[in-house]
Amino acid sequence: MNRMSVVSPPSIVSFTEPLHLACGQVLSDWNLAYESWGTLDEDGTNAILVCHALTSDCHVTSAGMPGVASGWWEEMVGPGKTIDTNRFFVLCINALGGSHGSSGPATPQPGGTQSYGMRFPFVTVDDMVRAQKRLLDRMGIHRLQLVIGGCLGGMQALAWGLHYPTMVNAVVALSARLASSSSTLALWSAVRRAIRLDPQWRDGDYYDGPIPHQGLGLATVIGLLHWMDGQTLEARYGRRRRGDGPGTLDSDFEIEHMFDGVVARAGGKIDPNSMIYLTRAIDYFDLSEAIIGAISTGQQLPPHLIVNYHRDLRYPPEEGEKLAAALSAAGARASTLTMDCAIAHGGFLIEQAAITVPVRDFMRSLVQ
Amino acid sequence: MNRMSVVSPPSIVSFTEPLHLACGQVLSDWNLAYESWGTLDEDGTNAILVCHALTSDCHVTSAGMPGVASGWWEEMVGPGKTIDTNRFFVLCINALGGSHGSSGPATPQPGGTQSYGMRFPFVTVDDMVRAQKRLLDRMGIHRLQLVIGGCLGGMQALAWGLHYPTMVNAVVALSARLASSSSTLALWSAVRRAIRLDPQWRDGDYYDGPIPHQGLGLATVIGLLHWMDGQTLEARYGRRRRGDGPGTLDSDFEIEHMFDGVVARAGGKIDPNSMIYLTRAIDYFDLSEAIIGAISTGQQLPPHLIVNYHRDLRYPPEEGEKLAAALSAAGARASTLTMDCAIAHGGFLIEQAAITVPVRDFMRSLVQ
Repeated sequence: MNRMSVVSPPSIVSFTEPLHLACGQVLSDWNLAYESWGTLDEDGTNAILVCHALTSDCHVTSAGMPGVASGWWEEMVGPGKTIDTNRFFVLCINALGGSHGSSGPATPQPGGTQSYGMRFPFVTVDDMVRAQKRLLDRMGIHRLQLVIGGCLGGMQALAWGLHYPTMVNAVVALSARLASSSSTLALWSAVRRAIRLDPQWRDGDYYDGPIPHQGLGLATVIGLLHWMDGQTLEARYGRRRRGDGPGTLDSDFEIEHMFDGVVARAGGKIDPNSMIYLTRAIDYFDLSEAIIGAISTGQQLPPHLIVNYHRDLRYPPEEGEKLAAALSAAGARASTLTMDCAIAHGGFLIEQAAITVPVRDFMRSLVQ
Repeated sequence: MNRMSVVSPPSIVSFTEPLHLACGQVLSDWNLAYESWGTLDEDGTNAILVCHALTSDCHVTSAGMPGVASGWWEEMVGPGKTIDTNRFFVLCINALGGSHGSSGPATPQPGGTQSYGMRFPFVTVDDMVRAQKRLLDRMGIHRLQLVIGGCLGGMQALAWGLHYPTMVNAVVALSARLASSSSTLALWSAVRRAIRLDPQWRDGDYYDGPIPHQGLGLATVIGLLHWMDGQTLEARYGRRRRGDGPGTLDSDFEIEHMFDGVVARAGGKIDPNSMIYLTRAIDYFDLSEAIIGAISTGQQLPPHLIVNYHRDLRYPPEEGEKLAAALSAAGARASTLTMDCAIAHGGFLIEQAAITVPVRDFMRSLVQ
């Protein structure tokens, strides 16, 4: 196994050991893509697993390497950074069902050339974590000093702490909660309907033609309506117009031109079918049973840092408190932190500097 | 002119006097549809104008008539009700650009049989009000004892008070504000994108084929995400599922089945193109200049009752206060009322009983 620094493109590891999914189906020929930074020590105990958000990928950082594209967590991860790649072997794995190298709807079906499309099996966050565990086993990683992530990544981090408590030293979950809310179910339902409404979606079999970027663009616009609250929209866009005429049915207000840009750029970041699969995994995310299981077995859980953002209507700080209370009831040391950011839910991506210090303090508090 | 009670179907009045629109275009052959209840007195001064919301029509009430379908404001309007059809001549006019008999995108273009579609000119709330004034003139209505409405209807009521202050005795505006917010612009932009994404929309020329009900359905779902807050969604739907399997990509959660119903029923209530035109009118709604004009001319304005709902993120009570302050600055008596309803913005339609008393008290306060 390659224990050297890998930057770009992601490494892809193939598995033929069957992966039994929560839905009852089995993947018998599947891949995971990952990137890593730093060097794994001899006993495989200096690893940190970073879990990416819904629309991110495993390119967390350029690690200061010239010519390497910036990653999504440059300020958090790198040499000398809070997550110090000089000290830790840092790993990020593209989520199962994603579209950046891991098996998902865009992957050709085994024994053929046609992509799975909507024939890819339904996967859960627990399935993603179970698949990641296989890769870590393969790489000789026996201990995770930290599992950290936001949004979908935060859910994975929480699942890691509950399902593999003896392997995980600490968990940082940002913009996450114990179980997805009704409003999250509603939002993702609208998002998936937007993708499927695009005539280019063709029941998910669009891989030999144009991708349904209009549907994905509308899905992103629907998401933005929730990620930016009224106050933020008012401050950034207000009622400002580009035109000075009496009005038009075409785009005129700044917010509409911004949305036009979002739609035009849609399709580069995530495969529309992956958006369907990953949001569906979030829908079914619910760790209530796992927490109750941990309470009843008395299993020792790792310490947690739970970070939520003011004005994140779907993952509000109150839910962070509830999550911490549930973890405490299960015997875990769980601290909470409430942050503020105009893009509330995505604060951990947008205003990285604000969270590097509390995460570093949390990591220092772990040192015996 | 018919001064008798008219219940159903709406009366349609044709105009050939040119209507100059804010966009610069002129309608020279246009219609307005209306329903009315009660009898107009000889001097035409006992009329009340009720303005309907975005997706409503002019069928306000059955007025207790057997065999007549219920209207959208049964508890507010009728014989002996707060808006008493025994006393007042009550009138509701389908908004210009709408799809219930007034000229709009579904109307055949003059001299042809093809519907306007997206060739119908862009109309504003002020255009709607100016058109209504023509109908009132034609009917011999010289004075409005009250103009009342919610949402788009509230905006019309406010515009009536500012543009025809000597004709209007009093205004009740529910779930409205001085100018549409950035988040309203964002919401309607998403809603219109959903309609246009439907392959059955065909650039608006779908009148000889199936209507784009999937797009309109998604538009309604996007709206519901804003009309119902997280608390309401949680209480009504939570994470409840119909299935008991491990999970599926198909509809499973109650909220998804509810949305399926919304999509299946879409298309009966409003023409998708009208949804485009009426939301666009709301986008440009901004009475700031009219208020400043009233302040500078010293024009006496009618008294106003401004009603807003807690948790209506786009039309919050604070905006009702701002509106009342602006009207007060222009010399109007303006009182505010904050209500609470699970469907915040649509409270005036859903929980009618709660507003009949304050509206009645306001009307009584007008009697000299």
